[in-house]
Amino acid sequence: MAHSGIRITEVQVDDVRVPTSDSLLGSDPFHRKPDYSAAIVRIKSNSEHVGWSVVFSIGAGTDWLVYGLKDLSVLLVGRELDEFIHQPGHFHQRLMEHHQLRWLADGVYRMVVGGLVNGLWDLWAKSEGKPLWALLTDLPIETILASIDWRYLRDALTPEEARGILERGQQDLGQRRDQMVQKGPLAYSTSGWLGLSDDQVRAGVNGLMATGLRHFKAKVGSDLEDDRRRLALLRDIIGDDGHLMTDANQIWGVDEAIEWMSALSEFRPFWIEEPTARDDVQGFVRIASEMEPLGIGVAAGEQIPSPVIFKQMLASGALTHCQIDATRLAGVNDVMAVILMAAKFKVPVCPHGGGIGLCNMIRHYAIWDQVAVAATRDNRIVEYIDFLQEGVFQTPLQIRDGHYVTPQSPGWGLEMDEGFIERHRFPTGAVWRDRPGPTGPAFEA
Amino acid sequence: MAHSGIRITEVQVDDVRVPTSDSLLGSDPFHRKPDYSAAIVRIKSNSEHVGWSVVFSIGAGTDWLVYGLKDLSVLLVGRELDEFIHQPGHFHQRLMEHHQLRWLADGVYRMVVGGLVNGLWDLWAKSEGKPLWALLTDLPIETILASIDWRYLRDALTPEEARGILERGQQDLGQRRDQMVQKGPLAYSTSGWLGLSDDQVRAGVNGLMATGLRHFKAKVGSDLEDDRRRLALLRDIIGDDGHLMTDANQIWGVDEAIEWMSALSEFRPFWIEEPTARDDVQGFVRIASEMEPLGIGVAAGEQIPSPVIFKQMLASGALTHCQIDATRLAGVNDVMAVILMAAKFKVPVCPHGGGIGLCNMIRHYAIWDQVAVAATRDNRIVEYIDFLQEGVFQTPLQIRDGHYVTPQSPGWGLEMDEGFIERHRFPTGAVWRDRPGPTGPAFEA
Repeated sequence: MAHSGIRITEVQVDDVRVPTSDSLLGSDPFHRKPDYSAAIVRIKSNSEHVGWSVVFSIGAGTDWLVYGLKDLSVLLVGRELDEFIHQPGHFHQRLMEHHQLRWLADGVYRMVVGGLVNGLWDLWAKSEGKPLWALLTDLPIETILASIDWRYLRDALTPEEARGILERGQQDLGQRRDQMVQKGPLAYSTSGWLGLSDDQVRAGVNGLMATGLRHFKAKVGSDLEDDRRRLALLRDIIGDDGHLMTDANQIWGVDEAIEWMSALSEFRPFWIEEPTARDDVQGFVRIASEMEPLGIGVAAGEQIPSPVIFKQMLASGALTHCQIDATRLAGVNDVMAVILMAAKFKVPVCPHGGGIGLCNMIRHYAIWDQVAVAATRDNRIVEYIDFLQEGVFQTPLQIRDGHYVTPQSPGWGLEMDEGFIERHRFPTGAVWRDRPGPTGPAFEA
Repeated sequence: MAHSGIRITEVQVDDVRVPTSDSLLGSDPFHRKPDYSAAIVRIKSNSEHVGWSVVFSIGAGTDWLVYGLKDLSVLLVGRELDEFIHQPGHFHQRLMEHHQLRWLADGVYRMVVGGLVNGLWDLWAKSEGKPLWALLTDLPIETILASIDWRYLRDALTPEEARGILERGQQDLGQRRDQMVQKGPLAYSTSGWLGLSDDQVRAGVNGLMATGLRHFKAKVGSDLEDDRRRLALLRDIIGDDGHLMTDANQIWGVDEAIEWMSALSEFRPFWIEEPTARDDVQGFVRIASEMEPLGIGVAAGEQIPSPVIFKQMLASGALTHCQIDATRLAGVNDVMAVILMAAKFKVPVCPHGGGIGLCNMIRHYAIWDQVAVAATRDNRIVEYIDFLQEGVFQTPLQIRDGHYVTPQSPGWGLEMDEGFIERHRFPTGAVWRDRPGPTGPAFEA
């Protein structure tokens, strides 16, 4: 057992927001004017290491996450990191099943637990000098199994089945790992947001194709004719061989999703993402069965609120692509469970990225999945959004020839530029303090 | 259209907690030491009316709800109540689908929206001088249909089907209403909590039987032999004709639930409540199909996090009894949708009560269901817990001959005793300020 000697001394939480609503970057039918935001967690210690974590949000409400993170952080201060290292599942479960806080259920509470737990994993990885993906890849199988809360999952995946998956993942692992260090996971990019002009989309996609990307995603669901127009534009830019994904961000009911996507099938969408409510397992099953003969896949995950919903989605054929997210669930422990369930049900893991810091985190999950769990690159693509990196993160993530560059620095690689944090601190930073308008929640203008 | 002339001037939110963990009242396998708590909402206006609402919680975390309620309340202040009265669905939807806050999803966010929306319904009812159940019963069918967000529900229940249900509910409505005013919904009580001695249970149940109650519920799931012992005791007290319900508060996985309840079937449980995770639709379907030949029903609702999960549970035979809750969903609008779906799928509505103020609220839903929606009392029982009424609420709810007394005062009847609020205000009230121990979250001692 490692003895890190690290004791947690303080947890700092900051509310940082970027006024992305000015440019409508990231806009979709539901989230029309997002201000990409993050609750930034720094777990400080008696060592030189700081455990970084972010919880992504889209403007108003970030302060709710910050409130929860600060409240829950008292349960961390003064503890030895080794408590977590020796029993990562126990600590995760104590938080998720806290005898009073459990009442708050998923949503804010699970995201807040994830924010703290992910900071602990970062601290752990740094104490061993490893990037997060390498920490996970090197963990004893027993430790992985003991990190997961099996209570509600074992009817779909037993710990023994998970052990079998991980043992198979050990075969030729060194070779896959070496190859992954040479060339990271295949990336894809989201362009074609509703707020952008055709020229902006064309310029953006051409620029990304020049870097080697061949998968592109467009938002759909506001207006069928406009969707046709933009999908035709994208299909024209990327050619017959390109992969054209569509994303409805839950704007439809079940029947509407089936009708709408049937009407768009001529553009040969690779998948429809979030066709309906994040927790409608049976609705997704119906949609997936209707899309299958049209050759359209079904993807979701960025808002799937619990491992239990993932379990049902994966076990029932509701998803053809599993879009794990980095900050929706209760951290690494939850996401490892989802990746293992996806491996059992042979649903490729294609993580959801974007926002602030999500891509920096999901690359580690994708690498772990492709090296050590599913142990294949087949059918796996990882979302990549090319903004909020330079000047935001101390070590911006890199893409080369359409692939993520496998990170080598310790932890998640989420350390942010202090000046960026200061300028974007809400509502007192330079970016916000002189802007007109309310500092609290407001209905869309 | 009514013109109330009421303008919202202020929203007051208080954090009130009762140290119920001292007596272990309300304890269960997961929530071992709950301090029954409420975020108390008072929507003040330019009239004599105040819109009251509570959001129930169990101790730590109540402040998270209070934080959210205060934050969101800025969207109410200055508005005319008539905006809500004329478009109750629009306002509810604007909150639930707020273009930035929607990211917070269910859990804390949906509960907070419910807290505000329910206060608006209280204000509306008071402006018409009607108890909440009578406001709902008197509403034009069009208004009910327009109160509900159909986006994710219409694949299970169309607005036209709901109209049909409500139109059928108009037949002989006056007669059922008169009878309901004479004798309210049938009550049942929860005794046999894990923290109580046998003598305490026997005394409590005998006392309740003397008031006419014949349905009793016991917590199960910590220890099979102890469950057998307590179920035998309860069966002995209530006799062969009494209804003995069991409640596991989500302690089990799916297979474990099936095994455990099969082992307890000799005590002829009327239902097993929350056998597994609140959002495991497919797990509940399996459990229900295994319980059916044993004559054991399946109930859930107090933590079902969204109308979409209720939709799937009701449409798939996962539940034999639909336990709507008063403060888990986003208020009256969400609960009306669930009651209508339950009517379509012929699942009796048996609301979840207890906590602080839940029974005061659910009686209105039960009456509306039994008078105007399902339009029957058959198979319908309403949870009743006989504490935190006297000295807590200005008008404590009443039980007579095993039935709720149908309330006649305007609104929910949630007005609380000011002295109770002051004494229990957390952490500064007299009850809390001198107690040892942390004022923030702590792991169970």
